[in-house]
Amino acid sequence: MKNTFAALRELCGEIADLRSAAAVLEFDQQTAMPANGGEGRARQLSLLARLAHERTVSDRMGELLEALEPYRLNCAPESDDFCLLRNLRRDFDRQRRIPSAYVSEFSSLTALAFQNWMEAREADEFGKFAPYLERIFDLRRAYSDFFAPYDHIYDPQLDDHEPGMKTRDLLPLFTHLRREQTRLVEAITARPHPVDALPSGHFPEAMQWALNTEVAGRIGFDFRRGALARSEHPFTTTFHLDDVRITTRLFEDNALSALFSTLHEAGHALYEQNIAPALDRTPLGTGASLGWHESQSRLWENLVGRSRAFWRGFFSAFTGPFSRRIRRVGRGTMLRGGQPCCAFGCSCGGG
Amino acid sequence: MKNTFAALRELCGEIADLRSAAAVLEFDQQTAMPANGGEGRARQLSLLARLAHERTVSDRMGELLEALEPYRLNCAPESDDFCLLRNLRRDFDRQRRIPSAYVSEFSSLTALAFQNWMEAREADEFGKFAPYLERIFDLRRAYSDFFAPYDHIYDPQLDDHEPGMKTRDLLPLFTHLRREQTRLVEAITARPHPVDALPSGHFPEAMQWALNTEVAGRIGFDFRRGALARSEHPFTTTFHLDDVRITTRLFEDNALSALFSTLHEAGHALYEQNIAPALDRTPLGTGASLGWHESQSRLWENLVGRSRAFWRGFFSAFTGPFSRRIRRVGRGTMLRGGQPCCAFGCSCGGG
Repeated sequence: MKNTFAALRELCGEIADLRSAAAVLEFDQQTAMPANGGEGRARQLSLLARLAHERTVSDRMGELLEALEPYRLNCAPESDDFCLLRNLRRDFDRQRRIPSAYVSEFSSLTALAFQNWMEAREADEFGKFAPYLERIFDLRRAYSDFFAPYDHIYDPQLDDHEPGMKTRDLLPLFTHLRREQTRLVEAITARPHPVDALPSGHFPEAMQWALNTEVAGRIGFDFRRGALARSEHPFTTTFHLDDVRITTRLFEDNALSALFSTLHEAGHALYEQNIAPALDRTPLGTGASLGWHESQSRLWENLVGRSRAFWRGFFSAFTGPFSRRIRRVGRGTMLRGGQPCCAFGCSCGGG
Repeated sequence: MKNTFAALRELCGEIADLRSAAAVLEFDQQTAMPANGGEGRARQLSLLARLAHERTVSDRMGELLEALEPYRLNCAPESDDFCLLRNLRRDFDRQRRIPSAYVSEFSSLTALAFQNWMEAREADEFGKFAPYLERIFDLRRAYSDFFAPYDHIYDPQLDDHEPGMKTRDLLPLFTHLRREQTRLVEAITARPHPVDALPSGHFPEAMQWALNTEVAGRIGFDFRRGALARSEHPFTTTFHLDDVRITTRLFEDNALSALFSTLHEAGHALYEQNIAPALDRTPLGTGASLGWHESQSRLWENLVGRSRAFWRGFFSAFTGPFSRRIRRVGRGTMLRGGQPCCAFGCSCGGG
């Protein structure tokens, strides 16, 4: 049994490494790739996705899971081994419904669509991106059909993000939220608009970069096990538990955009960086679901980042003259991740 | 025959895509990866190297080459198809001597060694790196032994860089060069030392970044099909012919270091970016040999970069006050590749 379980972990590890390699390629696409790199990148990503899928649904995987079924039934239902075997079985059964050719095509399409989205966004021409979006919808519908029959066409998609969740369970929740939130927003907007205490104006990139690095580090993002980069749209990606990347984007006329993005992504990253090392390279080595993940990112973005206590510490970093600070804090830190250092005049207490 | 050749191209393409994915992972390791990312990266690289090697020496490859042998013999010896089949056969025969386990181990070792080299370099402690270097030598010796018998233990290594070249052919050449170059250096150093016209002092990173981007673009590096990044040691890597990356390193007390590195790497990149698109994703889609490649990098670094004509254009970028220029040129360009723009006071004629 021990050998069989080790063999399963080995196979899991190989799948995880292939998915990690793909994640590095996607990260590079969004942070460093030149405009014309997209076609080649789509081919590479499509190949890696296929290789990972082939292993996930391989007969070998099926045999190992079968052989380990008696062991699983003897495990405590909350034990790591039980959960791993349950999740792998679930992946195996679900992924078996999806042809490898579909996996390749969808991976290639989204990589090309991303390149196209970047160009369409720059040119502010939705029409350029629309055909890609349509094709994505087509393939997404085809994806649901691999799981037919279903109550709602979104159910098979939702299941990938929130295992077991159904559209019919979510609708009443969202209906309720919408009603209550609308009331809340109306109550807030009926009151006088508060004075925007943050000075508008110019926030140089170097200063923002240093501030965002500082803030991420101060809330616990480990820069030896992760890095901050820039991208068109902020995201978090995990190559393995000791290499979690977050990105932000800087607007020189709006320093809050980057700050809240960084807090949000660092929230995701804190979740990933603090997963038990024993779960690395398995399907358990990530967030339990998208909902859990968003609860972490929004905790930091909204409950912490929009609190009075947070701003008591960081407000002064946004006010006062920046010109001297750029020279003091901006150098070097902009291009390398490195350790955060506190060189602001704020009261956060130093790096 | 046509179908067989297409199948071979397909297999070649898959091997090329796997090698490209590995190249992206190596590029990321040297330009963005956090300190603790090394172990996971070594596993990922080792897997990709094994998958590429397995395909290179697969029975399928052998069968395709065998089936295409009559076609090859009918091709003109300088035709692309002839050269492709010749090189693939050569790779197949050579790589078959190397066990896949060796390929995995060597790839993993060099990835770990790189991380260690970075730390040892930072700490200036060669002793930390020495065990890795020893192990690399051991594995390199083992590599040569896969090709025994040989005249000289370096021959199998040399053959990877300069196909067909032997150590015994190189020794007389280097002996001659050493004698003549020593004389040349003696003659030069006997003359009075020329005045170093470049001002020493502080060259801010933002200014150097803009200058290096500008110079690379001016000599023809295509920023839509490539990008400039920073790394501990400068290098060039090709993911495919439309995505060639170069790196440089910036020292604020020595602006020439980055400049000559960039010219050197852009020289390599010009070679790669100008290879015929039809050869992409084949073993022909790269430089003919390391010697040819170095001839291109050194042409730009030394014959162009150290010429009077070059400096007539770029000298003024290094002199005069920089403080105003940083604000004008440094913003944004430091973190994104983008198109080069000429905002210097030099006489290069604009972007």
